[in-house]
Amino acid sequence: MTDMAELPDEPTGWMSDRELQHVRGQLPVVYVNVIPVRISPMGKVTNVGLLLRAYDGAISRAIVAGRVLYHESIRDAIVRNIEKDLGIGALPQVPLSPTPFAVAEYFPSKGAGPFHDSRQHAVALAYVVPVQGPCEPSQDALDLTWLSPEEAASDDVAAEMAGGQHHLVRQALAHCGVLL
Amino acid sequence: MTDMAELPDEPTGWMSDRELQHVRGQLPVVYVNVIPVRISPMGKVTNVGLLLRAYDGAISRAIVAGRVLYHESIRDAIVRNIEKDLGIGALPQVPLSPTPFAVAEYFPSKGAGPFHDSRQHAVALAYVVPVQGPCEPSQDALDLTWLSPEEAASDDVAAEMAGGQHHLVRQALAHCGVLL
Amino acid sequence: MTDMAELPDEPTGWMSDRELQHVRGQLPVVYVNVIPVRISPMGKVTNVGLLLRAYDGAISRAIVAGRVLYHESIRDAIVRNIEKDLGIGALPQVPLSPTPFAVAEYFPSKGAGPFHDSRQHAVALAYVVPVQGPCEPSQDALDLTWLSPEEAASDDVAAEMAGGQHHLVRQALAHCGVLL
Amino acid sequence: MTDMAELPDEPTGWMSDRELQHVRGQLPVVYVNVIPVRISPMGKVTNVGLLLRAYDGAISRAIVAGRVLYHESIRDAIVRNIEKDLGIGALPQVPLSPTPFAVAEYFPSKGAGPFHDSRQHAVALAYVVPVQGPCEPSQDALDLTWLSPEEAASDDVAAEMAGGQHHLVRQALAHCGVLL
Repeated sequence: MTDMAELPDEPTGWMSDRELQHVRGQLPVVYVNVIPVRISPMGKVTNVGLLLRAYDGAISRAIVAGRVLYHESIRDAIVRNIEKDLGIGALPQVPLSPTPFAVAEYFPSKGAGPFHDSRQHAVALAYVVPVQGPCEPSQDALDLTWLSPEEAASDDVAAEMAGGQHHLVRQALAHCGVLL
Repeated sequence: MTDMAELPDEPTGWMSDRELQHVRGQLPVVYVNVIPVRISPMGKVTNVGLLLRAYDGAISRAIVAGRVLYHESIRDAIVRNIEKDLGIGALPQVPLSPTPFAVAEYFPSKGAGPFHDSRQHAVALAYVVPVQGPCEPSQDALDLTWLSPEEAASDDVAAEMAGGQHHLVRQALAHCGVLL
Repeated sequence: MTDMAELPDEPTGWMSDRELQHVRGQLPVVYVNVIPVRISPMGKVTNVGLLLRAYDGAISRAIVAGRVLYHESIRDAIVRNIEKDLGIGALPQVPLSPTPFAVAEYFPSKGAGPFHDSRQHAVALAYVVPVQGPCEPSQDALDLTWLSPEEAASDDVAAEMAGGQHHLVRQALAHCGVLL
Repeated sequence: MTDMAELPDEPTGWMSDRELQHVRGQLPVVYVNVIPVRISPMGKVTNVGLLLRAYDGAISRAIVAGRVLYHESIRDAIVRNIEKDLGIGALPQVPLSPTPFAVAEYFPSKGAGPFHDSRQHAVALAYVVPVQGPCEPSQDALDLTWLSPEEAASDDVAAEMAGGQHHLVRQALAHCGVLL
């Protein structure tokens, strides 16, 4: 697939598009990355939710992702970005601890690391978040698919993800004790 | 308060009391330690549940604790011990990851470390577990009290806990971003 | 003590002071926070290093802290900021994992959380880093003091720290199994 | 390869072989599992050390592993087992925090989970430990090989490991930010 902007665009707030674009060339931007999962009553991951996004003519799978806004707490950013991507009925179990299970460093130049975003240097705090309610793809997502852990970690699905996010999906599953 | 057996006794299963007592003098025993909490919809700890136990005439506060049985998974041990201490209506959110937030090493000799259990060397995997349902003290617990994070971390409550478990309560709160 | 800018100023690079000041009012800035420690051969924390900083006429103790620069990896930012604050002889043991033990969210408005920075919203990834070589306070630090874990966690030292960083020192010690 | 005892035998101490065998059928045994690594000055894993073991006519690769003894701290068990398997010149960087990056639950019956040990139910606390000195295979290990992270995570090497330990090697690499 073609290379594309891996982290989604966002409705701008108090910063103009032009200004955000300028800032993105000057310092790293804070993101949250969320791997939405369905779990069993015993806490085991049964499904991983991946979004289908279109960008510049290419289609790719993606996790929930978005910026942390000025004066927004990480917990608030997690909930807002889940609602943005999965709808307000998702009912996320917000993490008890604000410490991420991993940090993904997206660099604008290719080859600088496993994660890549052509538009910016983003430092993404990554969380696995169980969602219990009905989810529907919103905004710019075309679809939402619930995959088994095996499918989500497969090479086929990896090939459909952009920016190295398949690494984060696999890291998330390993973190949850799903060993493939 | 007097020193007492910090980790609760348990209904014996396939091992006789005498045999268990023998084994306890020979190798470390695997425990789970659970700090039960109530949380807000945003994942913030609002209350910490502490049990009131009587032992040998002394009364002390304690967290949920119990052995991991032969061929029992850690997740199963967490749920079984929560049901044992808080009743079957507790509805625990079983941790996504089997990795504990801390490991508490209870030694039988005093001064060997912050945690102490006069009967045994126990290696306890510690988890913070939100419970959503009604809880009632069961078995040998006299009462269950829901304290605010501030109360739970206070010196007064620490003085009422045995075996160094107040350290684990404070570690759990720090892990959840409750900074006191 | 008076309230002051908790995270240190930095020699500006490709961004002008005026520009950085402008950006700081618009989106969160990525920092690393490092608690430098001396350890025993068995990995136990024996001392915690705290800097003495002067700012606007007030003096306070502080941990190592600094921004992550554009296109800089977290590991590089950790080493650069340690060298900036402790000198190039510090010989840090760079963390094996880029996942922080905690995330400190500094908000510019007081009371928004335990961490505060009057100039900006900073999201700081926090690490405990053993340093083995000789350290000397550099740049704007007046002094560097090695305290015992007990001293570092004491209320007296807490009162000498700004921005809530005493919380992070205590969290770091709890994370390392130093239970006080 | 044939299935074999995955966790190594150990020189018995105060417990007779017969007694240990008896206990192993009655309660879970506490182990430490250590993935020894060589690291760059920047903390990046450059090599993973795997032992070559012979057992019952089969040969397999293994990580450093051993029981936690009665009244032994986890830190002491880590160091003792590294010295047992890699020699006393290994110079391990003992983990700052006693909290493991993962817990591996070895069950005696196959299919009960990703980890298997035919002799016992073992709960293993897993650590990644950099070693800086010269290492030599000792005791029952035939050889020690330093593999690149890519080799260590490969399917070929996985096929040469017993008891599911290849899962732990991959989890360890993911934990260290080595994404493959």
